[in-house]
Amino acid sequence: MFDLTGKHVCYVADCGGIALETSKVLMTKNIAKLAILQSTENPQAIAQLQAIKPSTQIFFWTYDVTMAREEMKKYFDEVMVQMDYIDVLINGATLCDENDIDATIHTNLTGMMNTVATVLPYMDRKMGGSGGLIVNVTSVIGLDPSPVFCAYSASKFGVIGFTRSLADPLYYSQNGVAVMAVCCGPTRVFVDRELKAFLEYGQSFADRLRHAPCQSTAICGQNIVNAIERSENGRIWIADKGGLELVKLHWYWHMADQFVNYMQSNDEEEHD
Amino acid sequence: MFDLTGKHVCYVADCGGIALETSKVLMTKNIAKLAILQSTENPQAIAQLQAIKPSTQIFFWTYDVTMAREEMKKYFDEVMVQMDYIDVLINGATLCDENDIDATIHTNLTGMMNTVATVLPYMDRKMGGSGGLIVNVTSVIGLDPSPVFCAYSASKFGVIGFTRSLADPLYYSQNGVAVMAVCCGPTRVFVDRELKAFLEYGQSFADRLRHAPCQSTAICGQNIVNAIERSENGRIWIADKGGLELVKLHWYWHMADQFVNYMQSNDEEEHD
Repeated sequence: MFDLTGKHVCYVADCGGIALETSKVLMTKNIAKLAILQSTENPQAIAQLQAIKPSTQIFFWTYDVTMAREEMKKYFDEVMVQMDYIDVLINGATLCDENDIDATIHTNLTGMMNTVATVLPYMDRKMGGSGGLIVNVTSVIGLDPSPVFCAYSASKFGVIGFTRSLADPLYYSQNGVAVMAVCCGPTRVFVDRELKAFLEYGQSFADRLRHAPCQSTAICGQNIVNAIERSENGRIWIADKGGLELVKLHWYWHMADQFVNYMQSNDEEEHD
Repeated sequence: MFDLTGKHVCYVADCGGIALETSKVLMTKNIAKLAILQSTENPQAIAQLQAIKPSTQIFFWTYDVTMAREEMKKYFDEVMVQMDYIDVLINGATLCDENDIDATIHTNLTGMMNTVATVLPYMDRKMGGSGGLIVNVTSVIGLDPSPVFCAYSASKFGVIGFTRSLADPLYYSQNGVAVMAVCCGPTRVFVDRELKAFLEYGQSFADRLRHAPCQSTAICGQNIVNAIERSENGRIWIADKGGLELVKLHWYWHMADQFVNYMQSNDEEEHD
């Protein structure tokens, strides 16, 4: 059980409803500081959050997840002046624009990875940090393919590959930073938008999605916080149908015995 | 069985050994035209290929897979002047640079997707093309995570998500373009380079990889062509340990019955 009490949480938020609903639940958990980093300002949402728990310090900064790494470093140096440290980094920025492959991949995947690479040193136990938790809020379309959102699916598959790779004990055992992902099923807010399919042939499917029955964003947000509280390094969750399910991860590749034996050998100098 | 005889093949090639070895095998298949699009010139390799089969027309163009979509469109308009049409598009450009997340994702994922989106209309049966085959040459690290190459793994997971999404019958049944991927296991040429881990903690693992026993690039190339000849839309193969294995694809997400029923309903206007 991961106890959120007193924690410093940094949320790279989407502009849809999931981040707001998740933040509402976080505000009931007696966290000490909540930084919301988002592409557009929303003072009304901040006021709504503050009303839930006046004693939690809320900070808001506009954040462009596609900024260059050097800019990002300067940006988080500023964030740290107010936050002191970060216990929990939640990556929720997301875009689904099949007409703009570059922007979709940059926002959902490259930007998230650059953010993680920038924030990790502050959290790293061996670099003066206290360890912590990185939470990637992503989509079920990162686990299974999508007939209509090919670019979006690619970006979300990438998030899963990155999360699972970074969760390797090789890293966690040294830096103390656990990594997890929550894959959200479709929510009303997602499907209520006008969505374009990757190719025209998928458009009638995309159009039909707009009226499909989906879970509420509020319940999805509740389940994201449940997943955080039940976090362990490397866990991937599905938050769909109003519930929360732990994913049993599948492995495809069986390495050659010769390769496994070689890599497990302790004698690193043997073949030098 | 996909017969390569007389085909027009366009290969977006890597600068390592896999594309060259695969091309050597393609040259024995009596193809009509082979276009090699690669970031650097290699006239020696072209001469070597031409010697295998003098009657196959080989074209070479330098290609930057990270160019903007508008440039790519103009580029392929020029390619088509020589190629007339493309039956098979092979995407093999690849980069593994954990210090440069942007370049790794752009080369392996965004650039590949932009190339596919640019070339698809020429192949599309409903747009005057003759259908065909898109082959993504990728890595086993796109199926399973990697403790050392987090960015590379993310990009390759993305390739699998894109391949599986675009292989949906919704598209294939209309455009006649099959999509497949071959995930290569480690080859000598890959591990012989100096490779950086995503975080310093993984570096000793990355260093040890350099001497690990791996399959030969030539046999891997042979198996890529075997996979192409045994292609069916949506197939994902593993070419490792000198062999070729069809991947049994795993599905994680169980859609709500209500959602499935709704999307399968023929009456698209019902809720309008």
